[in-house]
Amino acid sequence: MTVRTPVMPSTGALRPLGTEEVRLTGGHWSERQAVNAEATIRHCLHWLEELGWIANFDRVASGDPAGRPFERAGREFSDSEIYKLAEAMAWEIGRTGDEALEEQFVKLTNRIGAAQHEDGYLSTAFGNPGQEPRYTNLEWGHELYCYGHLIQAAVARLRNHGEDDFVRIARRVADHVCDTFGPGGIERICGHAEIEVALAEFSRATGEPRYLEQARLFIERHGQKTLRENGFYYQDDVAVRDADVLRGHAVRALYLSSGAIDVAVETGDTELLEAVERQWNRTVARRTHLTGGMGSQYADEAFGGDFALGPDRAYAESCAGIGAVMTAWRLTLATGEARHGDMIERIAWNVLSGAVAPDGRAFFYANPLHQRTADPEPPTDRALNHVRAGGHRAQWFDVSCCPTNLARTFAQFAVYVATANDSGIQIHQFTPCTIDTEVDGARLALTVETNYPEDGRITVRVDANEGGDREITLRVPAWAQGAKLVHPDGSVHDVDPGAVSVGRIADFAPGEEFHLDLPVAPRWTFPDPRVDAVRGCAAVERGPVVLCAESVDLPGGDLDELTVDTAAAPVERDGRVYIAAQVHDRAEGWPYGTATTDDDGKAAELALQPFRLRATRGPASMRVWLPIG
Amino acid sequence: MTVRTPVMPSTGALRPLGTEEVRLTGGHWSERQAVNAEATIRHCLHWLEELGWIANFDRVASGDPAGRPFERAGREFSDSEIYKLAEAMAWEIGRTGDEALEEQFVKLTNRIGAAQHEDGYLSTAFGNPGQEPRYTNLEWGHELYCYGHLIQAAVARLRNHGEDDFVRIARRVADHVCDTFGPGGIERICGHAEIEVALAEFSRATGEPRYLEQARLFIERHGQKTLRENGFYYQDDVAVRDADVLRGHAVRALYLSSGAIDVAVETGDTELLEAVERQWNRTVARRTHLTGGMGSQYADEAFGGDFALGPDRAYAESCAGIGAVMTAWRLTLATGEARHGDMIERIAWNVLSGAVAPDGRAFFYANPLHQRTADPEPPTDRALNHVRAGGHRAQWFDVSCCPTNLARTFAQFAVYVATANDSGIQIHQFTPCTIDTEVDGARLALTVETNYPEDGRITVRVDANEGGDREITLRVPAWAQGAKLVHPDGSVHDVDPGAVSVGRIADFAPGEEFHLDLPVAPRWTFPDPRVDAVRGCAAVERGPVVLCAESVDLPGGDLDELTVDTAAAPVERDGRVYIAAQVHDRAEGWPYGTATTDDDGKAAELALQPFRLRATRGPASMRVWLPIG
Repeated sequence: MTVRTPVMPSTGALRPLGTEEVRLTGGHWSERQAVNAEATIRHCLHWLEELGWIANFDRVASGDPAGRPFERAGREFSDSEIYKLAEAMAWEIGRTGDEALEEQFVKLTNRIGAAQHEDGYLSTAFGNPGQEPRYTNLEWGHELYCYGHLIQAAVARLRNHGEDDFVRIARRVADHVCDTFGPGGIERICGHAEIEVALAEFSRATGEPRYLEQARLFIERHGQKTLRENGFYYQDDVAVRDADVLRGHAVRALYLSSGAIDVAVETGDTELLEAVERQWNRTVARRTHLTGGMGSQYADEAFGGDFALGPDRAYAESCAGIGAVMTAWRLTLATGEARHGDMIERIAWNVLSGAVAPDGRAFFYANPLHQRTADPEPPTDRALNHVRAGGHRAQWFDVSCCPTNLARTFAQFAVYVATANDSGIQIHQFTPCTIDTEVDGARLALTVETNYPEDGRITVRVDANEGGDREITLRVPAWAQGAKLVHPDGSVHDVDPGAVSVGRIADFAPGEEFHLDLPVAPRWTFPDPRVDAVRGCAAVERGPVVLCAESVDLPGGDLDELTVDTAAAPVERDGRVYIAAQVHDRAEGWPYGTATTDDDGKAAELALQPFRLRATRGPASMRVWLPIG
Repeated sequence: MTVRTPVMPSTGALRPLGTEEVRLTGGHWSERQAVNAEATIRHCLHWLEELGWIANFDRVASGDPAGRPFERAGREFSDSEIYKLAEAMAWEIGRTGDEALEEQFVKLTNRIGAAQHEDGYLSTAFGNPGQEPRYTNLEWGHELYCYGHLIQAAVARLRNHGEDDFVRIARRVADHVCDTFGPGGIERICGHAEIEVALAEFSRATGEPRYLEQARLFIERHGQKTLRENGFYYQDDVAVRDADVLRGHAVRALYLSSGAIDVAVETGDTELLEAVERQWNRTVARRTHLTGGMGSQYADEAFGGDFALGPDRAYAESCAGIGAVMTAWRLTLATGEARHGDMIERIAWNVLSGAVAPDGRAFFYANPLHQRTADPEPPTDRALNHVRAGGHRAQWFDVSCCPTNLARTFAQFAVYVATANDSGIQIHQFTPCTIDTEVDGARLALTVETNYPEDGRITVRVDANEGGDREITLRVPAWAQGAKLVHPDGSVHDVDPGAVSVGRIADFAPGEEFHLDLPVAPRWTFPDPRVDAVRGCAAVERGPVVLCAESVDLPGGDLDELTVDTAAAPVERDGRVYIAAQVHDRAEGWPYGTATTDDDGKAAELALQPFRLRATRGPASMRVWLPIG
């Protein structure tokens, strides 16, 4: 049976469910999926046509009888945007059966396929008349990276639709990669990891062991320094199984980690799996922003050093958020540990959801936690430099990896909500949904109702249980000190962060329900003393949602002159969170001296805003971490 | 009369002295000059030959009869390194009369001159067979930037030697620039400011008003958006007279400011001068690191936002330090304000002196105030990527602007020590030296003796005074609370930071002396509460010298686990400074939570090191700002 899910390991602690088994029935993620379908996917298609990035395929296909070069649009990796959009479309078609989108998918398939070489090679940037020969710039050429996204789209297509021309294009590409990069071939890697995770999943989806073996080879080649210089940047400095922490370019590191987990799981390589877990754990402990954002420096879009987590120059790229969800999800499936769901939740609410404008047509590429200046809004009629949007979402970028990446992630989001194993169902993300699957061969169906995270109550109703005694497990977030479980009989039980299981559901009357009550009142959060850049600061979180202050809510508007009082708890009123603050008026001059004291400041009450909704009310400076007065 | 000095305004509050008037007789700067002469200049010459950057001129000169392109070495701005080295050589030849160096200077002149086109155009990167045509990439081509350094070298040559072939090459270049970029010509600017400051000084040195007018035109064109995009980066976003703060690429911004001051002074444009002062003051108050380092972000090598002064990702480029000295020196001469000498002192001791290894053969390109990891030492046999030297000085860089820039600055350093006006002499930097000049037409000669900053006493002896009543003014640094002046009669007077003048020196007996006693005991320094990145931290300074902690002095070596106790003053023992610290052993995990307290830590005494001597004892992590426990 084909399960409509992006990651389908043959073994592991938990079994993923497909979009046919978990259906979102309302709430934030359902709304985001609707906006994604109605706005974002069309928006991406529009820009990819407008800029000629899709037409690159037509130009290759039509060629020039005299072999003259053609004028190519976009950067060397622009093909990948078309593939990521194709993946988003495949998930969306599977979710809703959208016929117009299906028609566009088929057209796109034909245009892509027409550019494929006889031997499977496919690129609009290399290997065609007047271009550099194929595979002559593995460091920066991104040919295998583009293939990876093509293949991930093919996995989506295969599982949502079945074999078709798109899948056949990907098969020819995958075979070509195995032929070309296998033992005795080009024994090197691509400068941007992605082919690994794609080939491993394509092997699962097609049953072709050769693809898994090629993925394994690529994973093992990392660290053998087959690329020129800057091995650190491409994770070619140290073998995956020997590294201690994620480093270098964040998206590359996280895609590589995802692929390494897949290979480790399929080949039974526990040393490799443990190596990735070790790197992930240290990265979470030392290299991750409060929002879940990863990649602390603009230079190289890279992980910085341990505890190098400056909020204003945090890069926290949207695509690194997606890579982190990919990694955390694979660890969830492999280990069954609920804590990985905490990271997915944190990233989803704060990085991913905020990276797309409420209308689905503008995007953050980087997601710093501090915007120092209220910059003017950027122009909307052209692609912007990806790091110069100045605190505003942009319609499109010169390097536009994030919009299509976000589109494919939102379209498949339901799969991250729940898993199953032979004992029952595990609920990882709290959102209104129905879950209908088989546990140990017998149907088990649930309905989840909640207004989380506005409200902390999560209600689970057992709609059908055709098997024996099953248990339903819910993640209890690490921040949820004081969470309670309310049994169908009305008894209330304290639960600790981690996970809570409700067993003996065979005893439940049909339609009987229980509740998990999570304490979502706004709370002060303080950083580890080693996080230099936010020492002496506090942030406010509400459930999984990180809040921020924006200058539009501060009279005078200068967030540099603000301190807060953490002795008083944040209060909630009319759907907004307020804190006690002081507004200062400090002197100008050499900013270092023997004095340690600040002026008293003027008391003020400051309204906060969810971080994901920042920059939606015009130009504003913003900060998540607030200096304690 | 020619004064051997790099900046010779026709008017201003103070008159610069030349290297023939101020002679260093010992101490740190004298030692640095000796190392510069013996090691650094030869080292640079070696690398410039080794890498073929000088040979580029030979290749242009010999050409190819068939007009075929030649294989060029180095980046598009590599010519400028040869010119900056020529400037260093010219200063050094003037200082010591080094004949071997003079011979090399003449050879270099001939090689450069052979590549000059008939019409004065001179570049090894553009405009020759097979290269892009001249001036087709003003944003990144650096042709005018290279000219600027050629012309500054010619100023040095003219003032240290007199008219020669080198100066004639520069005259032809300057004339060509005026012909080509004057009204009706290419009415645009160069993407890297430098031609402005060079042409203004060349006008002073040659008496040719046309060069000043061309400098003025370039200054006024900044902000007219004659370059494509990224105007902010090149200071082409706002007119110099309208800007409020230095921004964009730091070296560009500071070279431009220097040129703007020169133009303002020579044309009597007080609005322009005040505009630069306003930008400088705000930059010092909001965008400068404790070391005097400017440019807070690696991306774009740029100034960051106000108070965006993270120590670990501080760029504080060595060349930006030189640009800041250039600007502060011009402000000293124009305004007479002693405080600009504070900045020069801070930058010289902490950025410039530390950017060169004690042996003069390795360099820091960036000077962050926090090195998180004890990285292995880089290879010494090849040029390194300029931002990847990992906490170590490198022999040479791919972009190697700093070594030659430091060489020219050290060679001319004596000129920053003192000035004169019609009332007397002003001493700005404290170093053993003799000063021998004319004040209002009559000789005044002093000797300065000091072991500053190890010791705070500066002794000034009047050796000759052939005029009437003169005064000697000494800068009193802003940090020098409690400074004392000891008159020849033994009377002791409290002096406030700023400057102190000793008058009536006509009454002094020959050889009579007075002393300024500056309190150089190590002291705790705290940041303005708006400097987010170092909130809750303190640093130790000793006189003008910023100190740092290095992991090699900490048992266990993990500076992330350190807090300090600022209740106790730093103590000095056997020439080192010690502070009370706690070493912690903190738990690993998600680094944000509801707890605000730290563990107690283990008491330790920690030895500090002058920041300029960091990274001289093998791999070490390092920090200037120390978290307060």
